Amino acid sequence: MEKDKALSIVKEKLPNKRYVHTLGVLETAVNLAQKYGVDQKKVELAAVFHDYAKFRPIDEMKQIVVNENMDDALLLYGDELLHGPVGAYLVKQEIGINDEGVLDAIRYHTTGRPNMTLLEKVIYIADYIEPNRCFKGVEEVRELAKQDIDDALITSISNTVNFLMKKKQPVFPATLAAYNYLILKEE
Amino acid sequence: MEKDKALSIVKEKLPNKRYVHTLGVLETAVNLAQKYGVDQKKVELAAVFHDYAKFRPIDEMKQIVVNENMDDALLLYGDELLHGPVGAYLVKQEIGINDEGVLDAIRYHTTGRPNMTLLEKVIYIADYIEPNRCFKGVEEVRELAKQDIDDALITSISNTVNFLMKKKQPVFPATLAAYNYLILKEE
Repeated sequence: MEKDKALSIVKEKLPNKRYVHTLGVLETAVNLAQKYGVDQKKVELAAVFHDYAKFRPIDEMKQIVVNENMDDALLLYGDELLHGPVGAYLVKQEIGINDEGVLDAIRYHTTGRPNMTLLEKVIYIADYIEPNRCFKGVEEVRELAKQDIDDALITSISNTVNFLMKKKQPVFPATLAAYNYLILKEE
Repeated sequence: MEKDKALSIVKEKLPNKRYVHTLGVLETAVNLAQKYGVDQKKVELAAVFHDYAKFRPIDEMKQIVVNENMDDALLLYGDELLHGPVGAYLVKQEIGINDEGVLDAIRYHTTGRPNMTLLEKVIYIADYIEPNRCFKGVEEVRELAKQDIDDALITSISNTVNFLMKKKQPVFPATLAAYNYLILKEE
């Protein structure tokens, strides 16, 4: 699917602010893909569709998690986690994207997971640092992403875990597993 | 076993500074036990012996983890984690303590785990806040421990995870699981 066609589809699904965010993720992800040698067409598709399910009703997303036998833990750790895995499912069903690498990048863009592919890392980091993002720590991750995407990932996950714990919110186990995988790999 | 007999045993096993720490844990744990209604004799034993294995050679502790079929992950996440589970094993073998509640409090005093008993929580928190401890965040946990031991646990684990991530060290999965268990229970 061409990028412009893909963008016209998600534009219908997202409020304007989230569409602008998607354009930021697309631009950032394409830049990272060039730097790290990731297939540009796959990165474009994953970036454009990463938040495809973001504004589906929570109950509909939970029902899909149950019906499709997705990880039960997705129902426990906060509704914010649903749109990644449910988005991957819907993008396959409704848009007909079958590339498993692209679908995994959509599926894991919020939680991360151990042993992420470069495509998954690019989408995860682009989502974190795209130009419209403005929060404590984002500039450090922007700089790290220019040098070493794993270092950017380690710091962004650390920031996220710290942020969730300060708010006394649960932390999805796969997110810590993503961090530990990178740390133990570097040792 | 009487407290004085137990203390004379660990005094032989520990450098003076660690013995003084143990006395601090004992005093703090007994106070917490009175407040939260935990068996004083069990708390005394667990407190006195919690660091029994702390100064065993690392290789000996790793060999015990392997020989006794303990969780392989103990070998991956830093040597600091070994003395809890290995201590529980040695205290049973060498001292003859068979109370599984006491042994679990020793076993999990560094990592924590989901669904900890009150005895385990008392030893974990006493180890964190005993009077000789002096680090960022300890005073907040001391205050929380007077009100609600689960809140003290949540904050101490958050501090520990944040500390490890700042140093780019791995975080034992059961430690996050202990945090998530408490957070999800409160929701």
